[in-house]
Amino acid sequence: MNIIDFRLRPPYGGFLNANFKRVEIIARFTNQLGFEQAESVKKLSMDLLFKEMEQAGITKGVVVGRNTAQIGAVPNTSVAEIAKTFPDKFVAVASVDPTTRKDSMLQIEEARTLGMNMINMEPGLSAEPKYFDDRRLYPIYAYCEDKNVPVILMGGGNTGPDISYSSPEHIDRVLNDFPELKVISAHGNWPWAKEIIHVAFRRANLYISPDMYLHHLPGMDDYVKAANSFLSERFLFGTAYPLTPIVEYTKWFQSLPIKTEAMENILYRNAERLLANKPRW
Amino acid sequence: MNIIDFRLRPPYGGFLNANFKRVEIIARFTNQLGFEQAESVKKLSMDLLFKEMEQAGITKGVVVGRNTAQIGAVPNTSVAEIAKTFPDKFVAVASVDPTTRKDSMLQIEEARTLGMNMINMEPGLSAEPKYFDDRRLYPIYAYCEDKNVPVILMGGGNTGPDISYSSPEHIDRVLNDFPELKVISAHGNWPWAKEIIHVAFRRANLYISPDMYLHHLPGMDDYVKAANSFLSERFLFGTAYPLTPIVEYTKWFQSLPIKTEAMENILYRNAERLLANKPRW
Amino acid sequence: MNIIDFRLRPPYGGFLNANFKRVEIIARFTNQLGFEQAESVKKLSMDLLFKEMEQAGITKGVVVGRNTAQIGAVPNTSVAEIAKTFPDKFVAVASVDPTTRKDSMLQIEEARTLGMNMINMEPGLSAEPKYFDDRRLYPIYAYCEDKNVPVILMGGGNTGPDISYSSPEHIDRVLNDFPELKVISAHGNWPWAKEIIHVAFRRANLYISPDMYLHHLPGMDDYVKAANSFLSERFLFGTAYPLTPIVEYTKWFQSLPIKTEAMENILYRNAERLLANKPRW
Repeated sequence: MNIIDFRLRPPYGGFLNANFKRVEIIARFTNQLGFEQAESVKKLSMDLLFKEMEQAGITKGVVVGRNTAQIGAVPNTSVAEIAKTFPDKFVAVASVDPTTRKDSMLQIEEARTLGMNMINMEPGLSAEPKYFDDRRLYPIYAYCEDKNVPVILMGGGNTGPDISYSSPEHIDRVLNDFPELKVISAHGNWPWAKEIIHVAFRRANLYISPDMYLHHLPGMDDYVKAANSFLSERFLFGTAYPLTPIVEYTKWFQSLPIKTEAMENILYRNAERLLANKPRW
Repeated sequence: MNIIDFRLRPPYGGFLNANFKRVEIIARFTNQLGFEQAESVKKLSMDLLFKEMEQAGITKGVVVGRNTAQIGAVPNTSVAEIAKTFPDKFVAVASVDPTTRKDSMLQIEEARTLGMNMINMEPGLSAEPKYFDDRRLYPIYAYCEDKNVPVILMGGGNTGPDISYSSPEHIDRVLNDFPELKVISAHGNWPWAKEIIHVAFRRANLYISPDMYLHHLPGMDDYVKAANSFLSERFLFGTAYPLTPIVEYTKWFQSLPIKTEAMENILYRNAERLLANKPRW
Repeated sequence: MNIIDFRLRPPYGGFLNANFKRVEIIARFTNQLGFEQAESVKKLSMDLLFKEMEQAGITKGVVVGRNTAQIGAVPNTSVAEIAKTFPDKFVAVASVDPTTRKDSMLQIEEARTLGMNMINMEPGLSAEPKYFDDRRLYPIYAYCEDKNVPVILMGGGNTGPDISYSSPEHIDRVLNDFPELKVISAHGNWPWAKEIIHVAFRRANLYISPDMYLHHLPGMDDYVKAANSFLSERFLFGTAYPLTPIVEYTKWFQSLPIKTEAMENILYRNAERLLANKPRW
């Protein structure tokens, strides 16, 4: 088993000043989900994280950066460095703040030179929050579609100042307007489970990963049903670590009533395929 | 058992150049729903369709036309002709494009002279997509309310350029503003299952038919619960053929945990009552 | 067992000319929910109500007033009087129409002098319907946040002219903008169950009470799951009497698969804590 965790941020480098600074949020969300915090989170220990990954059977973590005015930023150089330091363990995804077109394009260019093959955006957390179908993101989507660069959007959960930022019409429009663009919805547009499943039914270019928001929350059964049927090749596994403990979350995920072939797709094949994707820079 | 299928488009006349031209969509959706395509669809055979209807116990199909700029159109004369050629098998529903008021009224007048008693609209698929509560539909609703003409709205699924076109507030406003108008939501406003059930709880003039989107998709259990309780007299059975195979879909539907009396209502009594409705032209 | 019913309107005083005047709505909704109307409702009998409360184990009812242009109003003096006449049975909550700022503030001042500690608003039912995040409610929220006055919003069901009035983004914005304000969503923003559970996951200042709309309607399982986990200290029990019969509803609620401690929180501890809250007038 070579599980790929599609959303994992290690206690290292720039993340210590961003995701891991939000101690109260991490604790509250972990507890509300019914989990205990992982030891590696409490101790900010990479060694413990590696042990937890090994215990969980996770051989690779997709380290998704962050570039927001509202909940912190990690320089793409720092994200890239993590993957360079531990090339067997991590794949790095660059983050782009879509506020100013010229700056966004420079960030993408930097990501390219750093050897990153995927772009992450969290536009609802820009200084001025933006919906996914905001005009200012459209040049970026166009570029990524033309260059075959997959885009991760933090599609659900605390993705903006209010729940309308995860409302399904915004991402649906993007998927329609850029039909060749591969879009991954991190947090799976939760809580709009049935709506995003409709969007995925309709749009073949959407991948979803409910990750932490799958765990006994509303929509779980719908996500699982979809994972078991038409979405089995576009569903991704993610722990959203440090928000869930890797070992317990992975174990729980593997106990879900998902058929063997679909489960294998979700735990690694789908991610492998996306990671093997080469941009046409 | 005399099952009435409230959404069935035969491979005949104008439908061959509209619904049946969308070969790729039919195949993709049928497969995503976990079905095999019916032989009658593959071979575009009316004889096979009749056999499938007989095998399924369907004695009458409601043939809903189409008049859209975006996914094709079938002349109402052609839809009416199908019902005239096979009067024991089919009932014809006219379609109206609501773009221009005078044209819409001419289309309704034509429907009347063709002996049709119901109107279908798919306003999200007009050249310029419209929401159900668009002002341009209001004269049509007013006319239909005054003349006691039921209106079918393609309320869910791919009902417009994005998922906001099936969002429940639009149809809710129409139902409030035309309280005597009988509205049938084809595709049952899927994926907004719980929301449309709220709307139906509140508005006594709404009928729903989730048809193909009921099959193991999110919302199924909620639709079934509603079918089994307060909505048992306003729930309609439909296969959305050619998007599902009639025999398999009908068999599956009959296996749902719906009480006998409600099941009978849904399979024919509710449809019978609507089809017996006479406009006051 | 000392159950507190967080939404109960007795057939007494001003309620006879408001809630109890909507005879047809009460009957239709009660029946659609699968209940028989309580004898105390049919006979408008306080004696029968007291018997029903006793039989159900309800020792206290939170009497939520009403001040709307669209579905009636009960003077706050009348609501206060009910609680003064039966101090062991009822707690009174004042209602405020947010249309005109100066009037609203006078209504709150009156509530204060009447000894009421909580404010109820139903802004979707004002003469001109308002969303929860309408600017005209913001001075009231600000005042209540500063003075530590909990606010009940009729968050779900027939809360406005169409379903967009219960759509979750409006209340989510209020909760964000007034993080110290305790907000109780009566009717639990139904039918937006999973969405409001997300909002509650995110905002620690939201309490929810799906009350009548919990009963075998879509979202029930999600509400119950939340009640059983992270929401167990912010879930409130309510019958929405006269819309459900107290005895049958309470009995049914107690049969839900909710753990003992969470059930006790919901049936009285959470309500007790809110009722013990003292404004800083």
